[in-house]
Amino acid sequence: MNEERIIAVQAALRESGVDALLISVGSDLPYLTGYRAMPLERITALVVPAFGEATLFVPELEAPRVDTSVEVRPWGETDDPFDRIAAGLPSDSTIAVGDQMWASFLIAFQDRRPGARFVDAEPLMAPLRMIKDKDEIAALRDAGHAVDGVADHLSTVRFGGRTEREMSRIVSDLVLASGHESVSFAIVAAGKNGASPHHEGSDQIIEPGDAVVVDFGGRVRGYGSDTTRMYCVGEAPDGFVEAYAVLEHAQRAAVESVRPGTTAETIDATARSIISDGGYGEFFIHRTGHGIGLDAHEQPYIVQGNTEPIRTGMAFSIEPGIYIPGRWGMRIEDIVVATDDGVERLNRSSRKLRFVE
Amino acid sequence: MNEERIIAVQAALRESGVDALLISVGSDLPYLTGYRAMPLERITALVVPAFGEATLFVPELEAPRVDTSVEVRPWGETDDPFDRIAAGLPSDSTIAVGDQMWASFLIAFQDRRPGARFVDAEPLMAPLRMIKDKDEIAALRDAGHAVDGVADHLSTVRFGGRTEREMSRIVSDLVLASGHESVSFAIVAAGKNGASPHHEGSDQIIEPGDAVVVDFGGRVRGYGSDTTRMYCVGEAPDGFVEAYAVLEHAQRAAVESVRPGTTAETIDATARSIISDGGYGEFFIHRTGHGIGLDAHEQPYIVQGNTEPIRTGMAFSIEPGIYIPGRWGMRIEDIVVATDDGVERLNRSSRKLRFVE
Repeated sequence: MNEERIIAVQAALRESGVDALLISVGSDLPYLTGYRAMPLERITALVVPAFGEATLFVPELEAPRVDTSVEVRPWGETDDPFDRIAAGLPSDSTIAVGDQMWASFLIAFQDRRPGARFVDAEPLMAPLRMIKDKDEIAALRDAGHAVDGVADHLSTVRFGGRTEREMSRIVSDLVLASGHESVSFAIVAAGKNGASPHHEGSDQIIEPGDAVVVDFGGRVRGYGSDTTRMYCVGEAPDGFVEAYAVLEHAQRAAVESVRPGTTAETIDATARSIISDGGYGEFFIHRTGHGIGLDAHEQPYIVQGNTEPIRTGMAFSIEPGIYIPGRWGMRIEDIVVATDDGVERLNRSSRKLRFVE
Repeated sequence: MNEERIIAVQAALRESGVDALLISVGSDLPYLTGYRAMPLERITALVVPAFGEATLFVPELEAPRVDTSVEVRPWGETDDPFDRIAAGLPSDSTIAVGDQMWASFLIAFQDRRPGARFVDAEPLMAPLRMIKDKDEIAALRDAGHAVDGVADHLSTVRFGGRTEREMSRIVSDLVLASGHESVSFAIVAAGKNGASPHHEGSDQIIEPGDAVVVDFGGRVRGYGSDTTRMYCVGEAPDGFVEAYAVLEHAQRAAVESVRPGTTAETIDATARSIISDGGYGEFFIHRTGHGIGLDAHEQPYIVQGNTEPIRTGMAFSIEPGIYIPGRWGMRIEDIVVATDDGVERLNRSSRKLRFVE
């Protein structure tokens, strides 16, 4: 598996005239080696030359954790790892660096190879990583179905009287209990906090009449889940049910529009035009979705201006929202994967508004 | 507070001949603005010119989360944020970039300002961030005392028969219950897994006779805790108690050696020479410690070759370890802060070997 991916990336390097790939933290590393590095100051770096063998440099104390078919070279606590890694990089060359590498690491390499041209590896990696294979889709599907169970279970949980932070904790516990190996986020945003799409759970107490955005996900076999469902405590706030009908229509239509050959921006436009026609266009303040895989957010981004054609095996979120500042917010989110003849929803729990105590 | 820090960093920029500071994800941002950005693909960037006002660029959908005294400029989903941010950067200048900025962001800025020289901001930021003020020390102290309670509580918990992963979960729950706002890590490494210093909790069942490394920490008011204590299930493995006596001696001596004017490498040498004299030198495979604050690992690093003089207000770990591959590992870790006349241990739970069921 990893060997095939390294062969594919080497072909991409040669086609693009890039001499070597140099990656550290981020998901390109587990994609190519099966090993996820700790996001700390001791550098882990994979060097993949356009021709020849790949080498993984790891801090000596982390070497016992590493299980990969790639050749591993540990560096010691008093070594200069940048000197050691740069030794394998041609001086007068083009080197593609992983998008999430720390800037301080890139600068250290640029200082050691002033004649080299450093470019972003994302345009090389994304075409490979965007198309999920059968095992990747199975992991995404298992992750999706697990969080669907959490969303349904939450319909039986009392929200009123708890803080957002407590609810976030309950969601996290349920995600782990559902078989996820880790929780990536558990947004619980009640009442006017719902109008902040990336709100962090606060000490605010959830009250009757609050609409609550619950957006959560984690990892199963390295692959992400990400779903959003809406819960109303007792009753919905003024104007909410009407807007929700528009949002649900937009989300369903966008999901149904997914098929090979359409483009990312067309899917965005499908959701956006329905929300605009409903009179809420100015309150849909973000793109319709993002790709998902080893990263929680990755290509393809479902956004105006992205003409990327959808292909079989692409997995991404469809998550339109409506946010009225000072009042409430709402979002409905499913992960979908494009299939040969259309789309598979990896989240299948009901998208209806849920009423809780 | 943030205003004073921005004034201090501007003075440092002018002294170093740097025209602007440009930071995104990482802890420099909360240090200077009170706001921690999400480590995602939508860039958040603070520009601090050597002269003039700082500006914080944030994704429009995250703007409602931002609470800072710095001027905030949201960018929209279809804007090019790099063009907007680079517009405020002089063309022919020296720009210091935050050490944890994504490489893809740095490359985007380098493409837009090819005449500029981009340098690592860490040498500018570390001297400021290394010296903790009273509030920072209070947060580190509260965090340290909270995890001490967890370490003590763990002495009453049954380890045997549980998997490492279950124990890791129990530790995480206790850290949150102790008043931490988040858990950063909860390493539980039993038996031979203990010989891997950064082991991740596996499905391995903890057995009688296992020595278990438990290394955990999280955040209180943004500041980290980090402590390691050793637990033996029933009895200690062969040779363990003798080695532990050496390790405890080394750790205590290193803590006691901390005072203003000594150097980071001297503290490392204190621990290392005792472990070497005890016959375990080759099994102490990492540095003695790392600074701690808004980052889990930051300067000063307590490592051979680091001649940084210790000053009042520096906070760091003292965590020597002994790792025998295929058999067991051990580590004892406290966070300490240098005071005018010596050292304060922020972890005060017993460093003795703990026996559990």
